[in-house]
Amino acid sequence: MPGTARSFGDIRIFTGSACPDLSEEIGRYLNVPLSPREIIQFPNENLFVRLLTSVRGQDVFLIQTLTTPVNYHIMELLILLDTVKRANAGRVTAVMPYYAYGRSDKKDQPRVPITARLLANLISTAGAGRFLTLDLHAGQIQGFFDIPGDEVSTFHLLSDYFLMKDLHSQPGGAVVVTVDLGYAKKGRNFAVALGLPIAFIEKRRTGNDAKAQSLTVIGEVEGKTIILVDDEVDTAGSIKGAVDILRVSGAGDIYVCFTHAILSPPAVDRLRSLPIKEIVTTNSVPIPPERRLPNMTVLSVAPLLGEVISRIHNGTSVGQMFNE
Amino acid sequence: MPGTARSFGDIRIFTGSACPDLSEEIGRYLNVPLSPREIIQFPNENLFVRLLTSVRGQDVFLIQTLTTPVNYHIMELLILLDTVKRANAGRVTAVMPYYAYGRSDKKDQPRVPITARLLANLISTAGAGRFLTLDLHAGQIQGFFDIPGDEVSTFHLLSDYFLMKDLHSQPGGAVVVTVDLGYAKKGRNFAVALGLPIAFIEKRRTGNDAKAQSLTVIGEVEGKTIILVDDEVDTAGSIKGAVDILRVSGAGDIYVCFTHAILSPPAVDRLRSLPIKEIVTTNSVPIPPERRLPNMTVLSVAPLLGEVISRIHNGTSVGQMFNE
Amino acid sequence: MPGTARSFGDIRIFTGSACPDLSEEIGRYLNVPLSPREIIQFPNENLFVRLLTSVRGQDVFLIQTLTTPVNYHIMELLILLDTVKRANAGRVTAVMPYYAYGRSDKKDQPRVPITARLLANLISTAGAGRFLTLDLHAGQIQGFFDIPGDEVSTFHLLSDYFLMKDLHSQPGGAVVVTVDLGYAKKGRNFAVALGLPIAFIEKRRTGNDAKAQSLTVIGEVEGKTIILVDDEVDTAGSIKGAVDILRVSGAGDIYVCFTHAILSPPAVDRLRSLPIKEIVTTNSVPIPPERRLPNMTVLSVAPLLGEVISRIHNGTSVGQMFNE
Amino acid sequence: MPGTARSFGDIRIFTGSACPDLSEEIGRYLNVPLSPREIIQFPNENLFVRLLTSVRGQDVFLIQTLTTPVNYHIMELLILLDTVKRANAGRVTAVMPYYAYGRSDKKDQPRVPITARLLANLISTAGAGRFLTLDLHAGQIQGFFDIPGDEVSTFHLLSDYFLMKDLHSQPGGAVVVTVDLGYAKKGRNFAVALGLPIAFIEKRRTGNDAKAQSLTVIGEVEGKTIILVDDEVDTAGSIKGAVDILRVSGAGDIYVCFTHAILSPPAVDRLRSLPIKEIVTTNSVPIPPERRLPNMTVLSVAPLLGEVISRIHNGTSVGQMFNE
Amino acid sequence: MPGTARSFGDIRIFTGSACPDLSEEIGRYLNVPLSPREIIQFPNENLFVRLLTSVRGQDVFLIQTLTTPVNYHIMELLILLDTVKRANAGRVTAVMPYYAYGRSDKKDQPRVPITARLLANLISTAGAGRFLTLDLHAGQIQGFFDIPGDEVSTFHLLSDYFLMKDLHSQPGGAVVVTVDLGYAKKGRNFAVALGLPIAFIEKRRTGNDAKAQSLTVIGEVEGKTIILVDDEVDTAGSIKGAVDILRVSGAGDIYVCFTHAILSPPAVDRLRSLPIKEIVTTNSVPIPPERRLPNMTVLSVAPLLGEVISRIHNGTSVGQMFNE
Amino acid sequence: MPGTARSFGDIRIFTGSACPDLSEEIGRYLNVPLSPREIIQFPNENLFVRLLTSVRGQDVFLIQTLTTPVNYHIMELLILLDTVKRANAGRVTAVMPYYAYGRSDKKDQPRVPITARLLANLISTAGAGRFLTLDLHAGQIQGFFDIPGDEVSTFHLLSDYFLMKDLHSQPGGAVVVTVDLGYAKKGRNFAVALGLPIAFIEKRRTGNDAKAQSLTVIGEVEGKTIILVDDEVDTAGSIKGAVDILRVSGAGDIYVCFTHAILSPPAVDRLRSLPIKEIVTTNSVPIPPERRLPNMTVLSVAPLLGEVISRIHNGTSVGQMFNE
Repeated sequence: MPGTARSFGDIRIFTGSACPDLSEEIGRYLNVPLSPREIIQFPNENLFVRLLTSVRGQDVFLIQTLTTPVNYHIMELLILLDTVKRANAGRVTAVMPYYAYGRSDKKDQPRVPITARLLANLISTAGAGRFLTLDLHAGQIQGFFDIPGDEVSTFHLLSDYFLMKDLHSQPGGAVVVTVDLGYAKKGRNFAVALGLPIAFIEKRRTGNDAKAQSLTVIGEVEGKTIILVDDEVDTAGSIKGAVDILRVSGAGDIYVCFTHAILSPPAVDRLRSLPIKEIVTTNSVPIPPERRLPNMTVLSVAPLLGEVISRIHNGTSVGQMFNE
Repeated sequence: MPGTARSFGDIRIFTGSACPDLSEEIGRYLNVPLSPREIIQFPNENLFVRLLTSVRGQDVFLIQTLTTPVNYHIMELLILLDTVKRANAGRVTAVMPYYAYGRSDKKDQPRVPITARLLANLISTAGAGRFLTLDLHAGQIQGFFDIPGDEVSTFHLLSDYFLMKDLHSQPGGAVVVTVDLGYAKKGRNFAVALGLPIAFIEKRRTGNDAKAQSLTVIGEVEGKTIILVDDEVDTAGSIKGAVDILRVSGAGDIYVCFTHAILSPPAVDRLRSLPIKEIVTTNSVPIPPERRLPNMTVLSVAPLLGEVISRIHNGTSVGQMFNE
Repeated sequence: MPGTARSFGDIRIFTGSACPDLSEEIGRYLNVPLSPREIIQFPNENLFVRLLTSVRGQDVFLIQTLTTPVNYHIMELLILLDTVKRANAGRVTAVMPYYAYGRSDKKDQPRVPITARLLANLISTAGAGRFLTLDLHAGQIQGFFDIPGDEVSTFHLLSDYFLMKDLHSQPGGAVVVTVDLGYAKKGRNFAVALGLPIAFIEKRRTGNDAKAQSLTVIGEVEGKTIILVDDEVDTAGSIKGAVDILRVSGAGDIYVCFTHAILSPPAVDRLRSLPIKEIVTTNSVPIPPERRLPNMTVLSVAPLLGEVISRIHNGTSVGQMFNE
Repeated sequence: MPGTARSFGDIRIFTGSACPDLSEEIGRYLNVPLSPREIIQFPNENLFVRLLTSVRGQDVFLIQTLTTPVNYHIMELLILLDTVKRANAGRVTAVMPYYAYGRSDKKDQPRVPITARLLANLISTAGAGRFLTLDLHAGQIQGFFDIPGDEVSTFHLLSDYFLMKDLHSQPGGAVVVTVDLGYAKKGRNFAVALGLPIAFIEKRRTGNDAKAQSLTVIGEVEGKTIILVDDEVDTAGSIKGAVDILRVSGAGDIYVCFTHAILSPPAVDRLRSLPIKEIVTTNSVPIPPERRLPNMTVLSVAPLLGEVISRIHNGTSVGQMFNE
Repeated sequence: MPGTARSFGDIRIFTGSACPDLSEEIGRYLNVPLSPREIIQFPNENLFVRLLTSVRGQDVFLIQTLTTPVNYHIMELLILLDTVKRANAGRVTAVMPYYAYGRSDKKDQPRVPITARLLANLISTAGAGRFLTLDLHAGQIQGFFDIPGDEVSTFHLLSDYFLMKDLHSQPGGAVVVTVDLGYAKKGRNFAVALGLPIAFIEKRRTGNDAKAQSLTVIGEVEGKTIILVDDEVDTAGSIKGAVDILRVSGAGDIYVCFTHAILSPPAVDRLRSLPIKEIVTTNSVPIPPERRLPNMTVLSVAPLLGEVISRIHNGTSVGQMFNE
Repeated sequence: MPGTARSFGDIRIFTGSACPDLSEEIGRYLNVPLSPREIIQFPNENLFVRLLTSVRGQDVFLIQTLTTPVNYHIMELLILLDTVKRANAGRVTAVMPYYAYGRSDKKDQPRVPITARLLANLISTAGAGRFLTLDLHAGQIQGFFDIPGDEVSTFHLLSDYFLMKDLHSQPGGAVVVTVDLGYAKKGRNFAVALGLPIAFIEKRRTGNDAKAQSLTVIGEVEGKTIILVDDEVDTAGSIKGAVDILRVSGAGDIYVCFTHAILSPPAVDRLRSLPIKEIVTTNSVPIPPERRLPNMTVLSVAPLLGEVISRIHNGTSVGQMFNE
């Protein structure tokens, strides 16, 4: 078929132990069952991996989201990569719906690591020939890899969901608010897609106490419906601060929207206690039932990742999925 | 001497042809004359380099700012690196007061390069063992290098200059304004150092015309003295837009502050025509006399770079310079 | 001083969080205090490291034994290496008293990893320029590294201890017995050093049940004092089987001797319940007080590692320590 | 089809901005239109590249001749390579009809670069998997590449052209003369192909003036038709010297033959003023109409490069094209 | 065909000069004739190689067993690899039925090389993308390679041959005996496959004379049929010692079994003089007629290697050949 | 001392087995005795190396000329490099007075290797950090190395020797003649140094017989004293042809001058039988007494190499030795 380029064997999908459900869902999208493998942890905690089917010459996709226990899941991914490489796979793509250590992306003080770069090096050293990930903390992390790859955005998945809500027709109007100034530019792009204005929360430390800080809202929020956006939510401390100051500032309904639901304790308790109308996120990180709040909408990234995997395998354009 | 570590010979400083004056000034700070070298361009434009003094075992610093003609200066740097490496230098540090291609730091659309990463690879391939640079467009570019290095900030140089002006005691107060939302976080840090609030300019495209855009000021600026900040100024188009909307919004005196004075045409004409009280920048990029406006203050980065080079050579802490 | 070669600054010793006591002891041997560093784990489990003293140009030794939690400690070591490299250390040696994944050193069935090689690659990718370790599971693992390094043996430490016991003069004599045939050759060397004969335990699986196995003693043990040897003890299952069959075979007093005391549950319970006269091991892996049985002798490897580090730093012979 | 091996997708040809006409001609030979791409130079001279069609899995050929502005065109090639690599091409071949810096191929004095090797490293670092070039200044430059590739010769193209002229039947006979002793061996091969004798021009510096030099003809030229050969002509200074001494030596008609028409000023003026019967060269470097003299014959390398590209793509023998 | 993955062109088999007969036999198994090549040694001993057929894009297998003259054959293999790589092969597998320097696999004393690792590095540096070998001296040597590959075992070939002899039904029974304790574990596995017990020969040096040594049999051998096993036989000195002590110990018939028949002088004389019932080995190393003793059975590894090559080429499972 | 840079320990010189006498002589020049090492070849031809003194942190020079048995000596060098690297040397320089495979420096026909590049890669892979060699067959081979190094020329050693002979004052004058057109440029430089003209021998094949060839002298030789020059002499076939045609052409006395005396059979017999006045060469390759003809002058390269090693070690200029 002109315009396509399949240079490898069949798709083989393996899942690490971090996100088996998402991997299954991707497999169903592709109509390709997960390939069988053993992952055993010996009493001395050394991991052992065995693939139960040949991958010789095949086009292998290893799916592992890099979430809790983070360092364990990273090592599991690296060992799986070594296994697949030594099993003579034709091509190996590390699929990481959530990429860990994204916030360790520069030396902003002396003598600290750039772990996001280290991790990229470890992944290619272990045998990945390509990478595939979702919504990196900073786009520059793409450049930490020398191997080719794809960072895919959930931007349309999330913005389409909000477009259907028609929030700009709310009385008082609506505004996108970023929890953090580091997210200002991405938040702006989200606001543009929704045809809404943008505002920001600014945090400053007060006094000598490292914990004490004052928050300021920059921009107009009074009487408006709020979409509070960020890339990931960990303990939800920033979200809580933002919601509090927004309420004080006279904001209307508050929606919270983010891609990666890390939700470390006490995130779920905090989110439960806050006056949030709806929390919109994805399953890039597994959210067990006990963390799923009634006002939480979890959009699946499986069709997105499945479609990208299909196009990588068939050598057709991924860029076209996003209308470029 | 305990606590120091000099493993190489003497300092040898070579300058490329991009910033001879700054290199001379660094040499004077270090009390080390520039080492002699020939750089010849043959009629066929092939560059030829010859070092006129031995560098065997020495601790070589190659100073080249990556400015116009950019691609020529990059190749000159790479060829100098190869020369120094093959001349058996003990250690080679590429000193780039201005690092080019910093805005090409991620794939934000399909099928584009990450030239800032490519450039980092080229520099280490050519023979650099270390890098030294000032105020990268994005801190993550540090992570594009696998070789160790130092990104040094002009933050204190610039903020100390403004602190002396005591702008927060102006009637109406003062505010730091970023020209672009991508600079929001760094602008905030600058504002904190000066004890001032922060505001932002937001640009949005209007209609189908790629050039037409509307600007919005987010935050309070009316009646305030403005410090408009960015990392570099190229054609000054964004500066012009910002000054215009700030005037419309009732701002008071406007200062402009940025590290890298690229000043491509028509930047100087634009800046000359704008009601700016003072333009504060550095000599990381040479500013020839004809581009130096009467209201322009050019702070020298030579003492900063000279001191860092001295500490690199002597194996003493660079971090301590910034009180960590 | 002729014959010595110090090319780097001073010794700097950092310890990971795996074996702080051993590291302290090594520091005391060298009269070099541990250098201060922060290791923080964020709520999202991402590690953060910061060195609190300059290492620019210095000769850095990072001490981390790769024991429980194994995968966490590996990642911590890798991040420390990246930190030290980017902090411009002169030389970095990864000191790993116990090297993990040593048993994953070959593909003895299809589609399994060689994790011991992967780990060697990860360590040099992260920035180690040299390695130092004790008693690898297989000597060939040295060859998994491309960087130079030293594998140091506790052979003399352990054999000297037993030589002092003068066991060959026991009535009935003594014999060295290996728990496993894979340790046959090393066990033989130990027996030679003690002037004793050697015998072996052989395990075979019986029937289809993977767990059922029969043990055989090959060689003479009846009436003899036994020194049961291995490189490491994990759950002590093999030790228990060996002691049982040796008792059945009429053996006399039983000593157990091994370098690495992993002692995963239920090792301590098993060892406590067995009729062992003395357990001789080292502190290459920390043994907390609650696991220290009354009949356990823990020899310190700190003087050995300290002396080797001193010689590496000063460029004097390590081989001479062992009389070659 | 037995004997062929196509492992990649379709041919995709991109041209840099150095030789669009030649690239078009190669595309026509292959019946493959050039793939669309944008190359933009921002006001700050930073290049930006965007491919306007997917190359995922395809067999990409990037055509760029490395001529004026040389350093710009090199950087453009490197950025194109990065773009194509990160766009997940299946294979990337850098096609360089003229390879720059060929004369910087060794250190013939202390502390000079070997830029031809540096350039080879840059090209593979940037992402080329293969190279294709024509008539290198020294065949050894092939060995500067670690990636596989093909150096194709215009030898037959040029010698066939002269064979048709039947010059050996001229009264007085004909002789091949090399402009430079460095071309002696290649000139000899050319003479053998034409069944003609060989002679040489030798240059020696006279006195202390670097520019003053005396020329000698070594071999018989009197009364003979001359074919003056070299690999490239830059300013035509050597050609002028050679023609002058040949005229003095009583030579007959003079033909000039070379592959790469660099023709830096004042080459065209010099060539116009010399009594040359015919100048035979190729379009490996674009020759704009204003430099095309009436006595200049420009043979196209497009069929040669097109055929080689076709064979590379189809996995059939390139060597057979030259009857080996 | 689902489950297969052929990404390269046709199989091309080249043989070095070390084992032409085995290569021919592999070619016949695969129904693929050996591809023609020239290997010339100039008077100055420099080797020259030329492939007489195109390999562009093909799946090349280079067969070279690394036996006498060892260092010559290694260089020949490396030069062949460079040739094939530069001839643009699609994939290159180095097939080494016998891998040299396997005993130099660790530093068991100071300042010695790890030549088996060095050799692995040389092979991949020269251009091999994969390796294929038989019965490495230590399985860990697999891990010396970073490129993927396959170590195939002759275990079944040899054990099946002995199973047919039904030796366990001999009067007195039979026992597997290892010549060396380093082979204890592999010998045990062989014994398990044959359903036989295991015993060992132990060597100890006696007195100060390096050559004087005493041998001990550990385990039961009296009255039993013996299968004496090892991986390779060089001068047969250990075999001779083992046979002598076994005779003294009352052993019955003695079979000798090993994979690699190096048979350096005086191996053949020693073996001829010993009371061995049958010597069972393979043709991994060529055994010329004059070294083939009447009691020697040479099993061919050609079908084994041929089948593995076929599966590598077709992307089907190699592991399945061994029933995993 | 200003201007010097010693970053490593003391000089340690090891010699391979190829040129022990030259190595001793270099050691005497440097007043540094050769360091002791064992090189053993086992019966299976596997080499074993052991350094008998510590090299930890030292500045090691390994001297090995790559002459007969060539491939053996290459492997010996590579194994020595691995040994020295793993013994933790501070720096390792491979000193190769004669570099093998220099004539395999390009693909001048399809599907041949570039062994000179391969060899450079092998040497750096094995652990060399620098190289030092004499009179490469082509200067471009320097560029085959990515590691820094020095190619030192015997040009002055040889030309000074001839200058003392005052040959230009011979009746009839003198002329430098190159044996081969590939040496035309270097021969010219030699002629310039002696103030003599230059002439060439040209060889052409005649008819279909590969061996049959006719020789031509290009340039004036009648009645002149001849200095016949080349870089190396292997079988002396070309020398014989040159001398024969020169005699026929009426040449006077003939001197022969070359750096590397390979002298493979029947070189010595040929040289003995020819009417050569004096053969001037060096000991870059050992010339055993039986090959030393009465008319042979062997100049020692030991002072040259010794001085360069001293300067490399002390970090002083090598270029200055040659007056640049």
